[in-house]
Amino acid sequence: MAPQSHLIPSRLAKRAHYDKETIYSILDEALFCTVSYVADNKPFSMPTAFVRYENKLYIHGSVGSHFIWALEKGAPVCISVTLIDALVVAKSAFSHSVNYRSVVLFSQGEKIEDANVKSAALEWLTNKIVPNSWSYLRPMKENEVKKTTVLAFEIDEASAKVRTGMPNDEEEDKPLPIWSGIIPIETTRRDPVPDDLSREIPLPKHLLPII
Amino acid sequence: MAPQSHLIPSRLAKRAHYDKETIYSILDEALFCTVSYVADNKPFSMPTAFVRYENKLYIHGSVGSHFIWALEKGAPVCISVTLIDALVVAKSAFSHSVNYRSVVLFSQGEKIEDANVKSAALEWLTNKIVPNSWSYLRPMKENEVKKTTVLAFEIDEASAKVRTGMPNDEEEDKPLPIWSGIIPIETTRRDPVPDDLSREIPLPKHLLPII
Repeated sequence: MAPQSHLIPSRLAKRAHYDKETIYSILDEALFCTVSYVADNKPFSMPTAFVRYENKLYIHGSVGSHFIWALEKGAPVCISVTLIDALVVAKSAFSHSVNYRSVVLFSQGEKIEDANVKSAALEWLTNKIVPNSWSYLRPMKENEVKKTTVLAFEIDEASAKVRTGMPNDEEEDKPLPIWSGIIPIETTRRDPVPDDLSREIPLPKHLLPII
Repeated sequence: MAPQSHLIPSRLAKRAHYDKETIYSILDEALFCTVSYVADNKPFSMPTAFVRYENKLYIHGSVGSHFIWALEKGAPVCISVTLIDALVVAKSAFSHSVNYRSVVLFSQGEKIEDANVKSAALEWLTNKIVPNSWSYLRPMKENEVKKTTVLAFEIDEASAKVRTGMPNDEEEDKPLPIWSGIIPIETTRRDPVPDDLSREIPLPKHLLPII
Protein backbone atom coordinates (compact mmCIF):
# COMPACT_ATOMS: atom_id res chain seq x y z
CA MET A 1 0.00 0.00 0.00
CA ALA A 2 1.70 3.21 -1.09
CA PRO A 3 2.01 5.75 1.72
CA GLN A 4 0.10 8.86 0.71
CA SER A 5 1.29 12.24 1.90
CA HIS A 6 -1.32 12.78 4.62
CA LEU A 7 -0.75 9.25 5.89
CA ILE A 8 2.92 9.83 6.58
CA PRO A 9 3.33 10.51 10.28
CA SER A 10 5.29 13.66 11.04
CA ARG A 11 7.00 11.98 13.97
CA LEU A 12 7.85 8.46 15.05
CA ALA A 13 7.88 7.34 11.42
CA LYS A 14 9.46 4.06 12.50
CA ARG A 15 6.11 3.08 13.98
CA ALA A 16 4.33 3.36 10.63
CA HIS A 17 3.49 0.35 8.45
CA TYR A 18 1.82 0.31 5.06
CA ASP A 19 1.89 -3.41 4.24
CA LYS A 20 -1.43 -5.22 3.96
CA GLU A 21 -0.29 -8.05 6.22
CA THR A 22 0.11 -5.71 9.21
CA ILE A 23 -3.02 -3.72 8.40
CA TYR A 24 -5.18 -6.82 7.90
CA SER A 25 -3.92 -8.52 11.06
CA ILE A 26 -4.98 -5.53 13.18
CA LEU A 27 -8.34 -5.21 11.40
CA ASP A 28 -8.98 -8.93 11.87
CA GLU A 29 -8.23 -8.92 15.58
CA ALA A 30 -10.25 -5.82 16.51
CA LEU A 31 -14.02 -6.19 16.75
CA PHE A 32 -14.86 -2.48 16.86
CA CYS A 33 -13.80 0.61 14.97
CA THR A 34 -14.63 4.31 15.17
CA VAL A 35 -16.06 5.77 11.98
CA SER A 36 -15.69 9.53 11.56
CA TYR A 37 -17.34 11.69 8.93
CA VAL A 38 -18.11 15.33 8.29
CA ALA A 39 -21.59 16.88 8.43
CA ASP A 40 -22.16 20.66 8.26
CA ASN A 41 -18.38 21.03 8.32
CA LYS A 42 -18.23 19.40 11.75
CA PRO A 43 -16.77 16.04 12.73
CA PHE A 44 -19.01 13.21 13.89
CA SER A 45 -17.92 9.79 14.98
CA MET A 46 -19.49 6.52 15.99
CA PRO A 47 -18.14 3.25 17.32
CA THR A 48 -19.36 0.19 15.48
CA ALA A 49 -18.56 -3.49 14.86
CA PHE A 50 -16.90 -4.33 11.56
CA VAL A 51 -15.41 -7.15 9.55
CA ARG A 52 -12.76 -7.18 6.87
CA TYR A 53 -13.28 -9.43 3.86
CA GLU A 54 -10.71 -9.37 1.06
CA ASN A 55 -9.81 -5.71 0.61
CA LYS A 56 -12.98 -4.20 2.08
CA LEU A 57 -14.19 -3.38 5.52
CA TYR A 58 -17.92 -3.92 6.19
CA ILE A 59 -20.22 -2.32 8.75
CA HIS A 60 -23.97 -2.63 9.17
CA GLY A 61 -26.78 -0.71 10.75
CA SER A 62 -30.49 -0.19 10.74
CA VAL A 63 -32.00 1.38 7.64
CA GLY A 64 -33.44 3.88 10.17
CA SER A 65 -30.09 5.01 11.57
CA HIS A 66 -29.01 8.64 11.01
CA PHE A 67 -25.42 7.49 11.10
CA ILE A 68 -25.99 5.01 8.26
CA TRP A 69 -27.90 7.62 6.24
CA ALA A 70 -24.96 9.98 6.47
CA LEU A 71 -22.53 7.34 5.24
CA GLU A 72 -24.53 5.55 2.56
CA LYS A 73 -24.32 8.63 0.34
CA GLY A 74 -20.57 8.05 0.04
CA ALA A 75 -19.29 10.77 2.38
CA PRO A 76 -15.54 10.57 3.04
CA VAL A 77 -14.82 8.66 6.23
CA CYS A 78 -11.86 8.14 8.48
CA ILE A 79 -12.02 4.76 10.19
CA SER A 80 -9.78 4.12 13.15
CA VAL A 81 -9.07 0.88 14.97
CA THR A 82 -6.93 0.60 18.09
CA LEU A 83 -5.65 -2.38 20.05
CA ILE A 84 -3.92 -1.61 23.34
CA ASP A 85 -1.25 -4.14 24.30
CA ALA A 86 0.55 -2.60 27.27
CA LEU A 87 1.15 0.50 29.32
CA VAL A 88 4.81 1.47 29.00
CA VAL A 89 6.02 2.72 32.37
CA ALA A 90 9.30 4.63 32.18
CA LYS A 91 11.40 6.26 34.89
CA SER A 92 10.03 9.67 33.93
CA ALA A 93 6.45 10.58 33.01
CA PHE A 94 7.83 12.15 29.82
CA SER A 95 9.12 8.79 28.57
CA HIS A 96 5.90 6.93 29.36
CA SER A 97 4.23 5.40 26.34
CA VAL A 98 1.74 2.79 25.22
CA ASN A 99 2.23 -0.40 23.24
CA TYR A 100 -0.53 -0.39 20.69
CA ARG A 101 -1.46 -1.46 17.20
CA SER A 102 -3.67 0.95 15.32
CA VAL A 103 -5.00 1.42 11.81
CA VAL A 104 -6.31 4.61 10.29
CA LEU A 105 -7.96 4.41 6.91
CA PHE A 106 -9.62 6.88 4.60
CA SER A 107 -12.42 5.66 2.40
CA GLN A 108 -16.05 6.15 1.48
CA GLY A 109 -19.05 3.91 1.89
CA GLU A 110 -20.55 1.84 -0.87
CA LYS A 111 -24.10 0.69 -0.07
CA ILE A 112 -24.47 -3.01 -0.76
CA GLU A 113 -27.71 -3.56 -2.69
CA ASP A 114 -27.28 -7.23 -3.62
CA ALA A 115 -29.14 -9.29 -0.99
CA ASN A 116 -26.67 -12.18 -1.32
CA VAL A 117 -23.66 -9.98 -0.69
CA LYS A 118 -25.51 -8.27 2.19
CA SER A 119 -26.32 -11.60 3.74
CA ALA A 120 -22.74 -12.81 3.21
CA ALA A 121 -21.37 -9.69 4.91
CA LEU A 122 -23.67 -10.24 7.90
CA GLU A 123 -22.42 -13.84 8.04
CA TRP A 124 -18.77 -12.69 8.01
CA LEU A 125 -19.51 -10.14 10.71
CA THR A 126 -21.40 -12.60 12.93
CA ASN A 127 -18.71 -15.27 12.53
CA LYS A 128 -16.00 -12.74 13.35
CA ILE A 129 -17.66 -11.67 16.59
CA VAL A 130 -18.69 -15.19 17.63
CA PRO A 131 -16.61 -17.61 15.55
CA ASN A 132 -18.49 -20.44 13.83
CA SER A 133 -21.86 -19.26 15.13
CA TRP A 134 -23.75 -18.32 11.93
CA SER A 135 -24.84 -21.82 10.91
CA TYR A 136 -26.06 -22.55 14.47
CA LEU A 137 -28.37 -19.52 14.66
CA ARG A 138 -31.96 -19.22 13.48
CA PRO A 139 -31.46 -18.39 9.77
CA MET A 140 -31.65 -14.73 8.73
CA LYS A 141 -35.03 -13.75 7.26
CA GLU A 142 -35.45 -11.84 4.05
CA ASN A 143 -37.13 -8.91 5.82
CA GLU A 144 -34.26 -8.74 8.34
CA VAL A 145 -31.80 -8.38 5.48
CA LYS A 146 -34.08 -5.65 4.07
CA LYS A 147 -34.14 -3.80 7.41
CA THR A 148 -30.34 -3.77 7.53
CA THR A 149 -28.02 -1.53 5.55
CA VAL A 150 -24.57 -2.92 4.83
CA LEU A 151 -21.80 -0.54 3.80
CA ALA A 152 -18.46 -1.56 2.32
CA PHE A 153 -15.29 0.54 2.48
CA GLU A 154 -12.36 -0.15 0.16
CA ILE A 155 -9.09 -0.46 2.11
CA ASP A 156 -6.75 1.48 -0.16
CA GLU A 157 -5.63 4.49 1.77
CA ALA A 158 -4.59 2.93 5.05
CA SER A 159 -1.71 2.91 7.46
CA ALA A 160 -0.92 1.06 10.64
CA LYS A 161 1.04 2.25 13.64
CA VAL A 162 2.65 -0.24 15.98
CA ARG A 163 4.66 0.28 19.14
CA THR A 164 6.15 -2.72 20.91
CA GLY A 165 8.79 -3.31 23.52
CA MET A 166 10.11 -1.66 26.62
CA PRO A 167 10.37 2.01 27.62
CA ASN A 168 12.95 4.25 25.93
CA ASP A 169 14.23 6.14 28.92
CA GLU A 170 16.56 9.11 28.50
CA GLU A 171 20.26 8.11 28.85
CA GLU A 172 20.62 10.20 32.01
CA ASP A 173 17.59 8.53 33.62
CA LYS A 174 18.74 4.96 33.05
CA PRO A 175 20.79 4.63 36.29
CA LEU A 176 17.89 5.88 38.46
CA PRO A 177 16.53 3.34 40.98
CA ILE A 178 13.01 3.80 39.62
CA TRP A 179 11.09 0.77 38.35
CA SER A 180 10.49 0.72 34.59
CA GLY A 181 8.86 -1.84 32.35
CA ILE A 182 5.48 -2.64 30.91
CA ILE A 183 2.05 -3.51 32.26
CA PRO A 184 0.43 -5.84 29.72
CA ILE A 185 -3.24 -5.14 29.00
CA GLU A 186 -5.33 -8.14 28.12
CA THR A 187 -8.83 -8.23 26.69
CA THR A 188 -10.46 -11.62 27.18
CA ARG A 189 -13.80 -13.35 26.69
CA ARG A 190 -15.16 -14.79 29.92
CA ASP A 191 -17.42 -17.82 30.25
CA PRO A 192 -20.76 -17.40 28.48
CA VAL A 193 -23.71 -16.53 30.77
CA PRO A 194 -27.07 -17.94 29.62
CA ASP A 195 -30.25 -15.89 29.72
CA ASP A 196 -33.45 -17.25 31.31
CA LEU A 197 -34.50 -18.88 28.04
CA SER A 198 -31.31 -20.89 27.75
CA ARG A 199 -30.62 -22.38 31.17
CA GLU A 200 -31.53 -25.87 29.96
CA ILE A 201 -29.89 -25.51 26.54
CA PRO A 202 -26.38 -26.98 26.29
CA LEU A 203 -23.65 -24.58 25.22
CA PRO A 204 -22.96 -25.19 21.53
CA LYS A 205 -19.46 -26.37 20.62
CA HIS A 206 -18.40 -23.01 19.21
CA LEU A 207 -19.05 -21.36 22.58
CA LEU A 208 -17.20 -23.93 24.70
CA PRO A 209 -14.05 -22.57 26.29
CA ILE A 210 -10.87 -23.54 24.43
CA ILE A 211 -8.81 -25.75 26.73
CA MET B 1 -26.59 18.29 30.46
CA ALA B 2 -29.32 19.40 28.05
CA PRO B 3 -29.71 17.09 25.08
CA GLN B 4 -29.00 19.08 21.93
CA SER B 5 -30.79 18.20 18.74
CA HIS B 6 -27.89 16.43 17.03
CA LEU B 7 -27.16 14.48 20.20
CA ILE B 8 -30.59 12.91 20.28
CA PRO B 9 -30.33 9.41 18.86
CA SER B 10 -32.86 8.66 16.16
CA ARG B 11 -33.29 5.11 17.45
CA LEU B 12 -32.85 3.28 20.71
CA ALA B 13 -33.40 6.51 22.61
CA LYS B 14 -33.71 4.52 25.84
CA ARG B 15 -29.97 3.88 25.66
CA ALA B 16 -29.13 7.60 25.80
CA HIS B 17 -28.00 9.38 28.95
CA TYR B 18 -27.20 13.04 29.43
CA ASP B 19 -26.40 13.17 33.15
CA LYS B 20 -22.87 14.06 34.16
CA GLU B 21 -22.61 11.14 36.56
CA THR B 22 -22.98 8.59 33.74
CA ILE B 23 -20.81 10.55 31.33
CA TYR B 24 -18.04 11.13 33.89
CA SER B 25 -18.01 7.50 35.04
CA ILE B 26 -17.38 6.29 31.47
CA LEU B 27 -14.74 8.96 30.83
CA ASP B 28 -13.00 8.07 34.09
CA GLU B 29 -12.85 4.35 33.38
CA ALA B 30 -11.63 4.56 29.77
CA LEU B 31 -7.95 5.34 29.20
CA PHE B 32 -8.17 6.11 25.49
CA CYS B 33 -10.46 8.11 23.25
CA THR B 34 -10.68 8.78 19.53
CA VAL B 35 -10.49 12.45 18.58
CA SER B 36 -11.98 13.37 15.20
CA TYR B 37 -11.66 16.68 13.40
CA VAL B 38 -12.09 18.13 9.94
CA ALA B 39 -9.26 19.23 7.65
CA ASP B 40 -9.84 20.18 3.99
CA ASN B 41 -13.44 19.13 4.48
CA LYS B 42 -12.32 15.57 5.27
CA PRO B 43 -12.52 13.67 8.54
CA PHE B 44 -9.37 12.72 10.43
CA SER B 45 -9.19 10.81 13.65
CA MET B 46 -6.58 9.74 16.13
CA PRO B 47 -6.62 7.54 19.23
CA THR B 48 -5.04 9.13 22.28
CA ALA B 49 -4.90 8.86 26.07
CA PHE B 50 -6.97 11.38 28.03
CA VAL B 51 -8.01 12.38 31.51
CA ARG B 52 -11.10 14.17 32.77
CA TYR B 53 -10.65 16.78 35.48
CA GLU B 54 -13.70 18.70 36.65
CA ASN B 55 -15.67 19.50 33.51
CA LYS B 56 -12.81 19.25 31.04
CA LEU B 57 -11.12 16.47 29.16
CA TYR B 58 -7.35 16.81 28.67
CA ILE B 59 -5.07 15.29 26.04
CA HIS B 60 -1.40 15.89 25.38
CA GLY B 61 1.06 15.52 22.54
CA SER B 62 4.38 16.66 21.21
CA VAL B 63 4.64 20.28 20.11
CA GLY B 64 5.86 18.72 16.83
CA SER B 65 2.73 16.63 16.20
CA HIS B 66 0.58 17.46 13.16
CA PHE B 67 -2.43 16.19 15.04
CA ILE B 68 -1.85 18.61 17.92
CA TRP B 69 -1.26 21.51 15.51
CA ALA B 70 -4.62 20.85 13.88
CA LEU B 71 -6.43 20.89 17.21
CA GLU B 72 -4.67 23.69 19.07
CA LYS B 73 -6.24 26.26 16.75
CA GLY B 74 -9.63 25.38 18.21
CA ALA B 75 -11.05 23.27 15.38
CA PRO B 76 -14.34 21.55 16.27
CA VAL B 77 -13.75 18.02 17.48
CA CYS B 78 -15.87 14.98 18.12
CA ILE B 79 -14.38 12.83 20.86
CA SER B 80 -15.62 9.29 21.29
CA VAL B 81 -14.96 6.83 24.07
CA THR B 82 -16.17 3.23 24.08
CA LEU B 83 -16.07 0.51 26.73
CA ILE B 84 -17.15 -2.95 25.61
CA ASP B 85 -18.73 -5.03 28.39
CA ALA B 86 -20.16 -8.09 26.64
CA LEU B 87 -21.12 -9.67 23.35
CA VAL B 88 -24.86 -10.24 23.35
CA VAL B 89 -25.59 -13.54 21.64
CA ALA B 90 -29.23 -13.98 20.62
CA LYS B 91 -31.03 -16.85 18.93
CA SER B 92 -30.91 -14.97 15.61
CA ALA B 93 -28.06 -12.95 14.17
CA PHE B 94 -30.51 -10.07 13.74
CA SER B 95 -31.05 -9.81 17.51
CA HIS B 96 -27.34 -9.96 18.35
CA SER B 97 -26.05 -6.89 20.14
CA VAL B 98 -23.25 -5.59 22.31
CA ASN B 99 -23.26 -4.39 25.89
CA TYR B 100 -21.26 -1.20 25.85
CA ARG B 101 -20.90 2.18 27.47
CA SER B 102 -19.93 5.00 25.15
CA VAL B 103 -19.62 8.77 25.24
CA VAL B 104 -19.63 11.11 22.28
CA LEU B 105 -18.81 14.74 22.91
CA PHE B 106 -18.48 17.80 20.73
CA SER B 107 -16.02 20.46 21.76
CA GLN B 108 -12.99 22.43 20.69
CA GLY B 109 -9.48 22.50 22.03
CA GLU B 110 -8.11 25.19 24.30
CA LYS B 111 -4.30 25.21 24.38
CA ILE B 112 -3.07 25.36 27.96
CA GLU B 113 -0.33 27.99 28.20
CA ASP B 114 0.11 28.14 31.98
CA ALA B 115 3.02 25.83 32.90
CA ASN B 116 1.45 24.95 36.26
CA VAL B 117 -1.84 23.89 34.72
CA LYS B 118 0.05 21.98 32.00
CA SER B 119 2.10 20.18 34.59
CA ALA B 120 -1.01 19.47 36.67
CA ALA B 121 -2.79 18.01 33.64
CA LEU B 122 0.18 15.74 32.92
CA GLU B 123 0.07 14.64 36.56
CA TRP B 124 -3.68 13.85 36.34
CA LEU B 125 -3.10 11.92 33.12
CA THR B 126 -0.14 9.94 34.49
CA ASN B 127 -1.98 9.11 37.71
CA LYS B 128 -5.03 8.00 35.75
CA ILE B 129 -3.05 5.59 33.59
CA VAL B 130 -0.87 4.30 36.44
CA PRO B 131 -2.60 5.28 39.70
CA ASN B 132 -0.43 6.97 42.35
CA SER B 133 2.66 6.88 40.15
CA TRP B 134 3.44 10.58 39.59
CA SER B 135 5.22 11.26 42.89
CA TYR B 136 7.37 8.12 42.46
CA LEU B 137 8.72 9.09 39.03
CA ARG B 138 11.72 11.27 38.21
CA PRO B 139 10.18 14.77 38.42
CA MET B 140 9.09 16.43 35.18
CA LYS B 141 11.62 18.92 33.82
CA GLU B 142 10.76 22.41 32.67
CA ASN B 143 11.91 21.69 29.11
CA GLU B 144 9.76 18.54 29.00
CA VAL B 145 6.71 20.62 29.89
CA LYS B 146 7.75 23.04 27.13
CA LYS B 147 8.04 20.23 24.58
CA THR B 148 4.51 19.06 25.38
CA THR B 149 1.27 20.65 24.27
CA VAL B 150 -1.73 20.13 26.53
CA LEU B 151 -5.20 20.72 25.16
CA ALA B 152 -8.38 21.02 27.23
CA PHE B 153 -11.89 20.33 25.93
CA GLU B 154 -14.96 21.59 27.79
CA ILE B 155 -17.48 18.77 28.37
CA ASP B 156 -20.71 20.57 27.60
CA GLU B 157 -22.18 18.95 24.54
CA ALA B 158 -21.97 15.30 25.49
CA SER B 159 -24.10 12.20 25.61
CA ALA B 160 -23.59 8.66 26.79
CA LYS B 161 -25.08 5.49 25.38
CA VAL B 162 -25.35 2.40 27.54
CA ARG B 163 -26.65 -1.08 26.78
CA THR B 164 -26.79 -3.67 29.52
CA GLY B 165 -28.48 -7.00 30.08
CA MET B 166 -29.48 -10.01 28.08
CA PRO B 167 -30.53 -10.41 24.42
CA ASN B 168 -33.93 -9.15 23.30
CA ASP B 169 -34.99 -12.02 21.09
CA GLU B 170 -38.09 -11.79 18.92
CA GLU B 171 -41.17 -13.33 20.61
CA GLU B 172 -41.38 -16.08 17.98
CA ASP B 173 -37.71 -17.01 18.48
CA LYS B 174 -37.92 -17.40 22.26
CA PRO B 175 -38.99 -21.10 22.26
CA LEU B 176 -36.15 -22.13 19.90
CA PRO B 177 -33.60 -24.54 21.41
CA ILE B 178 -30.75 -22.19 20.50
CA TRP B 179 -28.41 -20.94 23.22
CA SER B 180 -28.71 -17.23 24.02
CA GLY B 181 -26.97 -15.09 26.60
CA ILE B 182 -23.91 -12.91 26.95
CA ILE B 183 -20.16 -13.39 26.65
CA PRO B 184 -18.58 -10.92 29.08
CA ILE B 185 -15.51 -9.09 27.77
CA GLU B 186 -12.92 -8.17 30.34
CA THR B 187 -9.97 -5.86 29.97
CA THR B 188 -7.38 -6.44 32.69
CA ARG B 189 -3.90 -5.33 33.66
CA ARG B 190 -1.49 -8.24 33.94
CA ASP B 191 1.54 -8.42 36.23
CA PRO B 192 4.14 -5.73 35.50
CA VAL B 193 7.17 -6.94 33.47
CA PRO B 194 10.45 -5.15 34.30
CA ASP B 195 12.86 -3.99 31.60
CA ASP B 196 16.59 -4.82 31.78
CA LEU B 197 17.29 -1.70 33.86
CA SER B 198 14.81 -2.67 36.56
CA ARG B 199 15.37 -6.36 37.32
CA GLU B 200 16.92 -5.51 40.69
CA ILE B 201 14.51 -2.71 41.53
CA PRO B 202 11.60 -3.70 43.77
CA LEU B 203 8.13 -3.06 42.39
CA PRO B 204 6.82 0.13 44.00
CA LYS B 205 3.68 -0.19 46.15
CA HIS B 206 1.44 1.42 43.54
CA LEU B 207 2.34 -1.32 41.04
CA LEU B 208 1.82 -4.26 43.36
CA PRO B 209 -1.15 -6.43 42.40
CA ILE B 210 -4.24 -5.72 44.49
CA ILE B 211 -5.00 -8.89 46.50
